[in-house]
Amino acid sequence: MSNRLEPTSRNYDEKLQRILKASGKIFAEKGFHRTSVRDISRATKMSLAGLYYYFTTKEELLYLIQERCFVTLLLGWERAATADMDVRTRIRVFAENHLSFFCHNMHEMKVMAHEDESLTGEFQVKILVLKRRYVKVIMDLIRELQDREGRKGIDLRVVTFSLFGMMNWIYTWYHPDGPTTPDALAERFAHIFLTGIAAPSPTTAPQGD
Amino acid sequence: MSNRLEPTSRNYDEKLQRILKASGKIFAEKGFHRTSVRDISRATKMSLAGLYYYFTTKEELLYLIQERCFVTLLLGWERAATADMDVRTRIRVFAENHLSFFCHNMHEMKVMAHEDESLTGEFQVKILVLKRRYVKVIMDLIRELQDREGRKGIDLRVVTFSLFGMMNWIYTWYHPDGPTTPDALAERFAHIFLTGIAAPSPTTAPQGD
Repeated sequence: MSNRLEPTSRNYDEKLQRILKASGKIFAEKGFHRTSVRDISRATKMSLAGLYYYFTTKEELLYLIQERCFVTLLLGWERAATADMDVRTRIRVFAENHLSFFCHNMHEMKVMAHEDESLTGEFQVKILVLKRRYVKVIMDLIRELQDREGRKGIDLRVVTFSLFGMMNWIYTWYHPDGPTTPDALAERFAHIFLTGIAAPSPTTAPQGD
Repeated sequence: MSNRLEPTSRNYDEKLQRILKASGKIFAEKGFHRTSVRDISRATKMSLAGLYYYFTTKEELLYLIQERCFVTLLLGWERAATADMDVRTRIRVFAENHLSFFCHNMHEMKVMAHEDESLTGEFQVKILVLKRRYVKVIMDLIRELQDREGRKGIDLRVVTFSLFGMMNWIYTWYHPDGPTTPDALAERFAHIFLTGIAAPSPTTAPQGD
């Protein structure tokens, strides 16, 4: 029985992934509200009836895309971070995980940015819970770094979202096929975020500017 | 003659500003494509005929909003930056000018981010020219800083857009009425961007905050 179920379930998952991928692309290009399930049917070459086997509303589809992003990011992070890493390394690994996922899922990144307010009710609440859990990971790391180095001056929320800003804005300008690989990009952002673009300070003179 | 023209022209400008402000808000809330000129008529309490005296198409309106943003940013920058400032100060002043404008124009910020691809033809070209001119200002400053400090390691484009990312992402999380003022935010971002959030090295004392 389980032998018969498994391939079916794998087939289900693969097909759902394909639908999510195609929908993410269309949502990114046309916007969620202007996309119809008929557009998705055309792009996936699946019938409307076939599609509705995988989701019940267009909003559920948007929810599933966002859920998949956060779950993949969280699982990726848990796999990549190990207890022996120091906190700076863990921050860099967090950036690497975030960017390597989104550099390969730029459409989803744009959808996450643009359709932040398109979910309602339970879908909205569930994504908010996942998002908070994900943000908490990096916020805790930044707090740990600040505590360790005795630097509590800068508001944790401002610092955290400055990092997300750097990273998430790439959907407006970055080409994954260009000269800078996702890993190199993560390394550069982590470098800017941790140590800045200016020399540490010429004889420690100018502070904070 | 010029006495008679002036108040009329001022009245024209004021009314156009009011239309741009109202349209920016609706575009930010509903998206450009889902907004009708009728929505704008309702929000401004102006007739369709009255509105079409100020613009000919909805796309022109989106163009005028974006043009106004870039022109205000460029003029603000030219007023704020003086030749006697060192390059770090000029970078901070650039961030202050950018953030103080957008903190008071958050709807426009969202519209700039979301409707980047909604302009076509000549409108698109004109905005691209203004945008490039604006980006060049900060790129030149960053190049000057890197040259001066002999740090040419990080790709100028990556560095430049990491700063824009930090700053522009605020439309997703920042509340101008909250505890952090736009000026404080600019100072914090400039600090992160220039010197990072981690101490320069474990033995050097924490600086700047």
